[in-house]
Amino acid sequence: MKAVQVIEYHTPVHVTEVPEPVVAHPLDVVVRIAGAGICRTDLHILEGQLADAFHPVLPYTLGHENAGYVAEVGSAVSWLAPGDPVIVHPAVTCGFCTACRSGDDMHCPTWRFPGVDGWGGGYAEYMLTSARSLVKLPAGADPAAMAPHADAGLTAIHAVKRLAPHLRPGSTVAMIGFGGLGHLAIQLLRLYTTARVVVVDNSAERLKWAETFGPDAVFESVADMVARTGGVDAVLDLVGEHDVPREALAALRKGGVYSIVGYGGGTHIDFLDMINRELTVLGNQIGTHTELTELMNLAARDRIRLEVRRFPLEEVAHALDEVAAGRVLGRAVLVP
Amino acid sequence: MKAVQVIEYHTPVHVTEVPEPVVAHPLDVVVRIAGAGICRTDLHILEGQLADAFHPVLPYTLGHENAGYVAEVGSAVSWLAPGDPVIVHPAVTCGFCTACRSGDDMHCPTWRFPGVDGWGGGYAEYMLTSARSLVKLPAGADPAAMAPHADAGLTAIHAVKRLAPHLRPGSTVAMIGFGGLGHLAIQLLRLYTTARVVVVDNSAERLKWAETFGPDAVFESVADMVARTGGVDAVLDLVGEHDVPREALAALRKGGVYSIVGYGGGTHIDFLDMINRELTVLGNQIGTHTELTELMNLAARDRIRLEVRRFPLEEVAHALDEVAAGRVLGRAVLVP
Amino acid sequence: MKAVQVIEYHTPVHVTEVPEPVVAHPLDVVVRIAGAGICRTDLHILEGQLADAFHPVLPYTLGHENAGYVAEVGSAVSWLAPGDPVIVHPAVTCGFCTACRSGDDMHCPTWRFPGVDGWGGGYAEYMLTSARSLVKLPAGADPAAMAPHADAGLTAIHAVKRLAPHLRPGSTVAMIGFGGLGHLAIQLLRLYTTARVVVVDNSAERLKWAETFGPDAVFESVADMVARTGGVDAVLDLVGEHDVPREALAALRKGGVYSIVGYGGGTHIDFLDMINRELTVLGNQIGTHTELTELMNLAARDRIRLEVRRFPLEEVAHALDEVAAGRVLGRAVLVP
Amino acid sequence: MKAVQVIEYHTPVHVTEVPEPVVAHPLDVVVRIAGAGICRTDLHILEGQLADAFHPVLPYTLGHENAGYVAEVGSAVSWLAPGDPVIVHPAVTCGFCTACRSGDDMHCPTWRFPGVDGWGGGYAEYMLTSARSLVKLPAGADPAAMAPHADAGLTAIHAVKRLAPHLRPGSTVAMIGFGGLGHLAIQLLRLYTTARVVVVDNSAERLKWAETFGPDAVFESVADMVARTGGVDAVLDLVGEHDVPREALAALRKGGVYSIVGYGGGTHIDFLDMINRELTVLGNQIGTHTELTELMNLAARDRIRLEVRRFPLEEVAHALDEVAAGRVLGRAVLVP
Repeated sequence: MKAVQVIEYHTPVHVTEVPEPVVAHPLDVVVRIAGAGICRTDLHILEGQLADAFHPVLPYTLGHENAGYVAEVGSAVSWLAPGDPVIVHPAVTCGFCTACRSGDDMHCPTWRFPGVDGWGGGYAEYMLTSARSLVKLPAGADPAAMAPHADAGLTAIHAVKRLAPHLRPGSTVAMIGFGGLGHLAIQLLRLYTTARVVVVDNSAERLKWAETFGPDAVFESVADMVARTGGVDAVLDLVGEHDVPREALAALRKGGVYSIVGYGGGTHIDFLDMINRELTVLGNQIGTHTELTELMNLAARDRIRLEVRRFPLEEVAHALDEVAAGRVLGRAVLVP
Repeated sequence: MKAVQVIEYHTPVHVTEVPEPVVAHPLDVVVRIAGAGICRTDLHILEGQLADAFHPVLPYTLGHENAGYVAEVGSAVSWLAPGDPVIVHPAVTCGFCTACRSGDDMHCPTWRFPGVDGWGGGYAEYMLTSARSLVKLPAGADPAAMAPHADAGLTAIHAVKRLAPHLRPGSTVAMIGFGGLGHLAIQLLRLYTTARVVVVDNSAERLKWAETFGPDAVFESVADMVARTGGVDAVLDLVGEHDVPREALAALRKGGVYSIVGYGGGTHIDFLDMINRELTVLGNQIGTHTELTELMNLAARDRIRLEVRRFPLEEVAHALDEVAAGRVLGRAVLVP
Repeated sequence: MKAVQVIEYHTPVHVTEVPEPVVAHPLDVVVRIAGAGICRTDLHILEGQLADAFHPVLPYTLGHENAGYVAEVGSAVSWLAPGDPVIVHPAVTCGFCTACRSGDDMHCPTWRFPGVDGWGGGYAEYMLTSARSLVKLPAGADPAAMAPHADAGLTAIHAVKRLAPHLRPGSTVAMIGFGGLGHLAIQLLRLYTTARVVVVDNSAERLKWAETFGPDAVFESVADMVARTGGVDAVLDLVGEHDVPREALAALRKGGVYSIVGYGGGTHIDFLDMINRELTVLGNQIGTHTELTELMNLAARDRIRLEVRRFPLEEVAHALDEVAAGRVLGRAVLVP
Repeated sequence: MKAVQVIEYHTPVHVTEVPEPVVAHPLDVVVRIAGAGICRTDLHILEGQLADAFHPVLPYTLGHENAGYVAEVGSAVSWLAPGDPVIVHPAVTCGFCTACRSGDDMHCPTWRFPGVDGWGGGYAEYMLTSARSLVKLPAGADPAAMAPHADAGLTAIHAVKRLAPHLRPGSTVAMIGFGGLGHLAIQLLRLYTTARVVVVDNSAERLKWAETFGPDAVFESVADMVARTGGVDAVLDLVGEHDVPREALAALRKGGVYSIVGYGGGTHIDFLDMINRELTVLGNQIGTHTELTELMNLAARDRIRLEVRRFPLEEVAHALDEVAAGRVLGRAVLVP
């Protein structure tokens, strides 16, 4: 079958031919990919930035934001049949550890991360996953239009649901960075919280786009945001590098919460300051299967809108360039 | 009356004579001090370390860990009478902002911090506070024996109650540093969580003392703790300086929580790491009035034991030396 | 001043002349009433149904859903000034008990309930309350248009926020009875939950009105709702009498929640059934001051719409008849 | 193999010979029973009281409180091996529905209840269950000594953990009925809450036994308890029949919680009363797999003590008589 693999770092990618995956374990499922979202993490992978964190053996197929149709199921899978439209949770988890049992499957100690840790992902015609990782979509759904919810949407709903209990009547949340994940996060902040939401982005075009989602205010920089608001109660940081971590941490009011989604950088935290402002810092890693189910419920009822631009799988190199250059408003999806 | 004031930084303290406080506002209360706990923060204050955070005008009376007897009440105070034994919450708050209304009084934007921010504290015969800041003790209580609960105990219960919801069956919490606050925190961890508790301290004497409180294990260093446990699910850091923040952050397992109580230092946080391990970092600032009430309920029912060593107020310089040298197992209390 | 009092039960009401209230305690506030909402509880009061629960001494002034302008403040009230627009929380609470301290002021053991328990309410030109009971409205607000939020809106937000944590992705909530409180509750269910919401009411006119708020379905009876949905995960019962309690309890799926707002009736609960379906039954009594603040934040940002029909205070008898007959879609407000 | 079956209702039971169960599905596990606890529900089953709720087809093997050793595992079970000591969660659940995914497995819509709903239970030498239902015990554990935790202990921890968030500093919980489940519940109330705990039982012998667990007070009747306490903040009802439901509901203070564990009876709830006292009523059905894991952690660390009296499986009729007569202090366990 056709697939796009990481063959070596710092090298342009292209479509190659690899063997089709097959069912081996009773809970295995092979999915025929309808769409594979492109994530900024894919760019980081190709630059080798995740090599130390995940130690993948090259080559392997990229793509951790996938949806499609069930192609083949293992012997213990009774609730899925070939042809069912599905979205693929990015983690493959065991189902029997305490984390999995508690619905906190992202903390499964033996989890696998296809498309990132060396297992084959969804930049391909087919991929192998577990029945545990699938959410069935309504009959007639268009899986390619849903694919980016598997990571961008899931990360957004997870971060927003963790942030929500920290907000109080009249709280203000600043979203920093407004891209594919951001346009979902702002909608989820309005679904799950009653907080005021302000958006910070250094691109006038992105801010104009953000305004179509009804923010309470938009700003071109953190400094400008602080000058106009006097500080905020929470930051949802979708950038996570350069000066943003330092500036955004300083922008928090007493009792403030820093929610980390974007990465690449970091910051120093001073403990006297952490105590005197009683700050909370939350790292967020994707989200749980239950959260993906919840998101699919919202999507099925048209309570969330996902903007997608499709590229044929063969145009993967061009598509990655468009994402890298910030020229995709919404989320890019590869269609095999 | 006799009082011990911060007259200038880096200078030994002594008892001086100052005017007695009087009731001015309808909710004011004057408390006759029975005991004022000595906190490590008092040492930091005398070294000028909190000058930038609180900008106190010198001189002012030290002491933010107080208990005693009601001496005089304002016209709107109907539930307290002269002679009632009371413990004094360290903050004076407004009662009308959203934070106060929600029971989250430590985040009152107009709070005052007697003994720290320039208002007069409890290293004295009398102090002025608000009826909002008092918890009535049972008739016959010995307020001097309770005083350290007003800050050490309150900080411990607050940090433990915030940490508790993050723990899972089988979680392990590492307490780092075992002093006056620590001997309360370990008891509260056992009252509010079912986690395994391990203690790290570099003093053999303190570890021996810790063992009388039933920890699951004790270690002489973070490195030793990591070597033996393979990492922990939560750190309650009662040191907060030198190498501890960096080492303890690294000791956390996936989904781990870093709870900051001790201060003086800090650490760098890398956002890829915060995401990949999905860490949470919690600053803790003292605790709420409701938490102090809860703690006093526990104390009244002998469910928590507080070790106290009393010093006459006149011996304040000696008492501070003993605390600075780590020669007080438990908590030092000045008795006027 | 003009006021409408309960003089004896089962007797039509009318405007009489009574003395104006004055400030006596440091935290007292006199409010000039701009609007007093009419609640179905006022009808129950006039029929004597609450006499056993509250034992009011007659005569006293009706009205527990009030808004207006500050007229006079006590000596300890610094954050309100004459002329400030305010909404009046229906309870007067102490501020010092554990319940008040925790933000759970409705459980204050010494609370008073003006307009219900014999204290004077807001069917009048002025009423006496406490600074603790007021929420300041934005400058330029129209208090009469907000008054029904003080009870109908507050009860709705309280019940919805208590119900929300019990809902799961894909849960369905049935609202039974769609009147003045219901049109707020449906909006709040959409603000605070992502559940499907279905409405049951036996009036075609009310169901037509309900449909303007975007329910997922509407039904003319509980039986019809059960037949079409197969049962629901939660009931928000705004009727609470006749056959509704029995039928609605039976309509719950496993893990279901019965949230009681309407009253007058009751039902038998069988413990084997409570266990086998693992049901939860929640009584709701109005809501907290913090919830009222939160609701006013939503109102100020136009996130909730309140339909009001105004009547001059002199037309109180006519207005009560219109409410009793169910001819007011939305909420009736008396304007002195 | 030997087994004790329900052959017809209202008939004494005895040991018969039935075929051994075998693994059929990839997640199946056959457990060699080391001990099967006797639950009051077994008596109810034999009286036909659960026939309408579960419609079991007779005959089938009794016993839903089981522990033993793994005998045989299905092809997809990698984390268990023959000989492993295990405790058996009483429900067999699917693992793929939203309830199972969320850790709320008791609400799985396709759950089975071996020993109760017609599937074979543990009054036998072997039983068939799912890998999803097992918790591995520490090497060297004595499963027979743990068996009653599978239902009595699990129900107790579930009810206590649901009740805990409703309690406030100074709250009082009344446990009504002190038997096998009660002696675990009181220990769990002390582990998971800081509330005062009072015990009500009409047997002097049971009250004497209760006192060895450190209650704050004991009473011979609900009436006596109300007279002496003035009412309580929560009731944990382990009786659930006769006059207890009505009396105990009346004993609740404002904001009170009624937690139902015992069954057989019921009560009328009046909605005006539910609102005016803002009561919560919680049905409890056993508990989740995660809660059983948590309980086994406590047991492994000797933080909970379970009193057990063993009977050979052949003496099942005698053992049931002893339980029915209330002559077992603690929990009876059948040993095959």
